[in-house]
This record gives sequence, structure tokens and C-alpha cells, in this order.
Amino acid sequence: MSKVGFIGLGIMGAPMARHLIMAGHDVFLHSRSGVPSPLTEAGGVACVSPQAVAESANTIILMVPDTPHVQEVLFAENGVATGLGAGKCVIDMSSISPLATKDFARKIDDLGCDYVDAPVSGGEVGAKAGSLTIMCGGSDAAFARVLPLLELMGQNITHVGDVGSGQICKVANQIIVALNIEAVSEALVFASKAGADPEKVRQALMGGFASSKILEVHGKRMIKRTFDPGFRIELHQKDLGLALSNARQMGLSLPNTATAMELFNACVANGGSAWDHSGMVRALELLADHEIGRS
Amino acid sequence: MSKVGFIGLGIMGAPMARHLIMAGHDVFLHSRSGVPSPLTEAGGVACVSPQAVAESANTIILMVPDTPHVQEVLFAENGVATGLGAGKCVIDMSSISPLATKDFARKIDDLGCDYVDAPVSGGEVGAKAGSLTIMCGGSDAAFARVLPLLELMGQNITHVGDVGSGQICKVANQIIVALNIEAVSEALVFASKAGADPEKVRQALMGGFASSKILEVHGKRMIKRTFDPGFRIELHQKDLGLALSNARQMGLSLPNTATAMELFNACVANGGSAWDHSGMVRALELLADHEIGRS
Repeated sequence: MSKVGFIGLGIMGAPMARHLIMAGHDVFLHSRSGVPSPLTEAGGVACVSPQAVAESANTIILMVPDTPHVQEVLFAENGVATGLGAGKCVIDMSSISPLATKDFARKIDDLGCDYVDAPVSGGEVGAKAGSLTIMCGGSDAAFARVLPLLELMGQNITHVGDVGSGQICKVANQIIVALNIEAVSEALVFASKAGADPEKVRQALMGGFASSKILEVHGKRMIKRTFDPGFRIELHQKDLGLALSNARQMGLSLPNTATAMELFNACVANGGSAWDHSGMVRALELLADHEIGRS
Repeated sequence: MSKVGFIGLGIMGAPMARHLIMAGHDVFLHSRSGVPSPLTEAGGVACVSPQAVAESANTIILMVPDTPHVQEVLFAENGVATGLGAGKCVIDMSSISPLATKDFARKIDDLGCDYVDAPVSGGEVGAKAGSLTIMCGGSDAAFARVLPLLELMGQNITHVGDVGSGQICKVANQIIVALNIEAVSEALVFASKAGADPEKVRQALMGGFASSKILEVHGKRMIKRTFDPGFRIELHQKDLGLALSNARQMGLSLPNTATAMELFNACVANGGSAWDHSGMVRALELLADHEIGRS
């Protein structure tokens, strides 16, 4: 069994770390808001700083909210970097900027350590069940090294490519999901306002080229008016923010991602930050003064 | 066997009419550009006008390019309306304006006739194979009446709702297809420009919430750079034009459909009117000065 560090023990991180403890690893824990007692009772070791975690463990996993938090955990005073020795490995499972990730990885590489970016999808349910989808970037050797640990937390684990590719893939995923939600929203609001039964339209479209996981799942939520998360709009805003800021840095135009972000912003303006992301349809409904299914 | 009229014998109409002739129906034919001789050789009867078709047949099928053509065939001098008697039935299989369809149907209804809108998808291949997807609007009785004829031309036939619902469903389909193409385009251009392998990203996303028929089929075309139709951009422009004009008439905002139309326009500006609609990605590539897969 190996010595594993886990930094960031929130809604996602705590159940993920728990799987590592339960598998018999020596797990060293740190979190900005303190280590939850169930994890230490289960055998995890609380550490005073990211540096202390990195000194005790050979593989250090991060699961924190956003790019600045990763930067701080890695490179601030008492950060991971100050505790690393050559040959150790950092796995960032947070969802953060792909461009920043490449920068962080270079600095960790300079210390003689591996870096793997491994953002996830599947949410709290997937974290608890150990069934997360994990998208990985890093060298073949680094991926092979961390795979046994990742398999304790996820089921659908892909090595997408070089370091940064995991984060790129996650952003691409969030772009498509948001824009497919927007597509289904435009189509169903159009159909409903024109007088057709949106559920009949949804069913008719499911067999053909318009079919998608989003039409199947989120289309139904829009029609049934069930906007409990699921995946909260405020989290998808963060992801589209990463897409748009990275696109701008690279000199790339993402016109419909920009519009989708504005529609999420409009939802938040109307109290929707904790709505499921399928609630994006409400912003289009406001613009049309028409609610799906209302005759 | 019944007496069936067929008006509009282009790339789609000719093979569709042929299925009716081969099934043994008495088929009365008219087309702006003349009746193709293979259809008369097979037993079809050429008529001098839409009026003459409507006088000879009990069910009159239209398959013409756009809303103004349907209006002319139905209501111009020597049009279908002047040849109709009470109890006959008009099936419009063209893809036209849902709002105009409701207007046309009202006028045909005033003559004591049924009206069914039944636009199709599946293209020339589906028309020849008799495997079209057909989306129908009309009364239950009218749908039941025309279903045996439609089954000679298509396989996946849905009664979506009242008259107009078929056209509404077709427009909704074309909105989602265009916007899912745009979504995959933004995601793959982002991933490629950021340095990931777009095919690896596509594969990684296929199992999750980003999965769609478009990611599967059109995503592959974008990566393999195969932009032969398929479905031509100029045809999809027509369909988005219907979406946008009907949306404006109804007081509805379709922001991403509008952007997708502009990207198609940009493709046409670059010689792409006959590209497959997956070629929309090229407009985003122009904006980014980056081609998918180019390092």
C-alpha cells in the first residue's frame, strides 16, 4: 500500500479520499476548512499544511474549487511544492484552466516530480459511489503509475494525452453539454410557442440526428419543470468561464459558449444559481414571455 | 388502389412518387420542370397543372422546395385548390414555414378537404430506399387516412399533433442538429488549439452527457476533414431561415440559431454552399486561424 495525500475535502474530495482509506492506503489529509472527523476516524491522518501532506505522501491528490486554489495549494508558503522530493507525483483532480495546468506541471516537473491532471465528471453521486468519469493528461508512465489509485475513485478512466489534456477534455465536455442544453431549449421553446406538444416533439426527435443524452435527460427536465440539481448553474458558469478565458488567451472565438454563459447569467439574475443547468431554458422563456407547455 | 396526385418531382419527389406507382396506385403527376419520363413509363400519368392533378386524384401530395412554392401550387391560377372537391386530402411533404402551413390548412379545410403536413428527413438516400423519417401534423382521422401512403415512402412515421406540428417538429430538429454541430465545432476547435488530440477527446466524451449523434457522426467528419454531403449547407440555411422568420413572427428569441446561421453564411462566403453541414466548423476555424488537427 502506498502513502497518498489528499488536499481538498469538500463535497467531492471527502468521499473520494474515503475510498483510498478504505482500500488500505496510508492517506494524509488537509483541507482549508479542516479535516472531517469521519475521515480521521476511518484511519486518515490530518496534516497541518499542504507542505506536510507532500512530505508524508508519495502521491498527492488535489480536489479544490478552481485555478487560484490549485496555485495556492501548490506554490504558496507551506505549499505542496516546498514539501515535494524528486520522484513524487501530483494528481490534480480539480477542474481548472488547461493553460494554467501546463504552467503548474512545468514547475512540478522542474522538481523532478510527475504531474497528472485528472478532472472528473459524475458529481457527488459518482464520488460517493466510486463511479466518476476521469479524464487524464500526463505521460504514459505517469498515467500508468496513478491508474490504480484512480480506479478506486472512478470507472470510466481515459488517458486523453499529454499533461493538460484532461483539463482540455473536461472543458470540451462542458462546452458541448451547455450548448446542447441551449440547443434543446431553443427547439422546445420554439415548438411549444408554435403550438406543438413539446414532449411529442422530443420523442419524435430522439431516434434521429437530433438525438443526444441532453435531449433525452435534460429535455425531459425542461418539459416536466424539474430544475433541482443535478448540476448547479453556478458550477457550469465556472466551467464556461474557464472555456471563455482560455479561448481568449489562445485567440479563439466561441460565440455560442459566450451566449450560453449570458443565459446562465440571466438565470442567476433571476435567482437560479442553484437550479439544475437544464434551467437555462428559463432564460430563453423569459426572452419569449412563454413557458414550455403553457398554451 | 387509390388515385394519388404527386406535385414536385425533383431529387426527393421523383423517387417518392415512384414508390406509389410501384405499389399499384393510380398516380397523377405534375412538376414545374416537366414529368421525368421514367415515371410515366412506369405507369404514372402526366398532368398539365396542379389543378388537373387535384381533379384526377383523391389525395394530392406536394414535395416542392419552400413556402412560396407550396403557396403557388395550392392557390395560384390552375392551382390545387381550384381542382379540389370536398372530401379530398392534401399532404404537404415539403419542409416549409409552420405558421404558413396553418394558414394553408385553414383554406384547404374551408373547401371541405383534409390537410396533413408531413415533412421528411433522410434525404435522397431515404427517398430512394423508402426509409424516410416523416413528421406529421393533422387530425387523427386525416393521419389514419394518409398513413398507408406514407408507409410506402418512409419507415419512422410519427403523428406529432395538430396540423402544423409536423413542420414545427422538422424545424425543431433542424435547430438542434445545427446547434449540436456548432457545439461540437466549438469543443473540437478549442481542444485542438489547446494542444489535445481531437479524436481522443471525441472518444472520451462519447460515453457521457456530451454524447450525441452529431458528436458521433459529424464530429468524425470534422476530424477526418470529409465535408462531402451528407446534407448541404445551403439546405440547412433554408431550414434555419424558417426557424428565424417564424421565431420573429411569434416573438421569440433564438440567439444560437442566429449565430449558427451566420456561421453557415460565412461558409457560403468561402465557397461552402455545397459542403456538408459539418463544414460549419470551418467558419470557427477561420475565426481562430486554426484548423482541427493542425499542430
